Amino acid sequence: MKKFAVVLAGCGAFDGAEIHEAVLTLLAIDKLGASYQCFAPDIPQAHVINHLKGEEADETRNVLVESARIARGDIKPLAEYDPAEWDALIFAGGFGSAKNLCDWAFKGDDCTIDPDVEKAVKETFLVEKPIGAMCIAPIILGKLFQGANLTTGQDPASGGFIEKHGNTYTQTTHGEVVIDSNNKFFTTPCYMLEARISNIAAGTENMVKEMLKVM
Amino acid sequence: MKKFAVVLAGCGAFDGAEIHEAVLTLLAIDKLGASYQCFAPDIPQAHVINHLKGEEADETRNVLVESARIARGDIKPLAEYDPAEWDALIFAGGFGSAKNLCDWAFKGDDCTIDPDVEKAVKETFLVEKPIGAMCIAPIILGKLFQGANLTTGQDPASGGFIEKHGNTYTQTTHGEVVIDSNNKFFTTPCYMLEARISNIAAGTENMVKEMLKVM
Repeated sequence: MKKFAVVLAGCGAFDGAEIHEAVLTLLAIDKLGASYQCFAPDIPQAHVINHLKGEEADETRNVLVESARIARGDIKPLAEYDPAEWDALIFAGGFGSAKNLCDWAFKGDDCTIDPDVEKAVKETFLVEKPIGAMCIAPIILGKLFQGANLTTGQDPASGGFIEKHGNTYTQTTHGEVVIDSNNKFFTTPCYMLEARISNIAAGTENMVKEMLKVM
Repeated sequence: MKKFAVVLAGCGAFDGAEIHEAVLTLLAIDKLGASYQCFAPDIPQAHVINHLKGEEADETRNVLVESARIARGDIKPLAEYDPAEWDALIFAGGFGSAKNLCDWAFKGDDCTIDPDVEKAVKETFLVEKPIGAMCIAPIILGKLFQGANLTTGQDPASGGFIEKHGNTYTQTTHGEVVIDSNNKFFTTPCYMLEARISNIAAGTENMVKEMLKVM
């Protein structure tokens, strides 16, 4: 049975992992006969957003602790991730990918990547295992690599960032997956487009399906 | 297009709505060609559980605000729910159903139901529209009615409670739905059983499919 490591960035579209994308990634993996383990960096969230009001809240939360909600408690610190133990790595989307896993949402071109995230991505790439990223998460690959082919849907801001770093940006719509065969990168837009939840299910399932073909 | 009202009890298996059950209910509704609106009571959570450690945390959170994470911000206070505007009512599971929507997890037989929850259920019943409940949430129907046929899987504690209140408890396994045609109640066990996430997808989809037949 093929084993996916799934990286979460908290629990909630606006300050963490996008919950539908994360859950539907886990569903796709299970439906397609593979298994998963969730990981998240053990770091404070950049901030907490009240998802009812869309405003910043005066609270502090931890990315690993909140991600554990999506994983029903079965989650490991990303620092413990070893690509030798897993067949593929996936990053769920949500603003947490751009706020906690890196700080692109705040710093744009000058962003830096969380060290555990950078290590996980680079080590997985070196052993030539596939890496998937959905929604806004492909910016992490765009920052760490050059010459990759990536998508975040049809978004000028993240698309421009990806191109500025020497990568190709491919526009996509619902359920489409950009396959970068040279690098084994798989990206799909999910909620970077105005979407219904069944569009998200199609995107995650198509991405996992394509990843399994090279595993 | 048929319209479902989906009630959430927070965001997380141990103190709120079970996230997989909630998301896969929304997916089932969308896949089957209906639409949904999320609701939650605007009340403090009974407590906050650190889902990484499984321990109570020294925090306070609000059920509506946390439920908004699952709903991507598109959620209404349960006090605004009017059964005339919706074709069916569904309660997602998770311990929040037994801690926030009622206090059965703390008080057992002496539990009381949140007033907004009780009003929503009773008014929906009176206009003869279907009510669905998964996981532990059927205890709410067990408390408010007599002569109903309900399931929470194969759980002696909640099963005993449901029977003590004059209802029939039907044991079920993955994906099965107990259909109480007289009352238009639809219940399915989800994570009250040891389950894979695809078992949850089957349970929610089967439940929504059966509900649509009477709508």
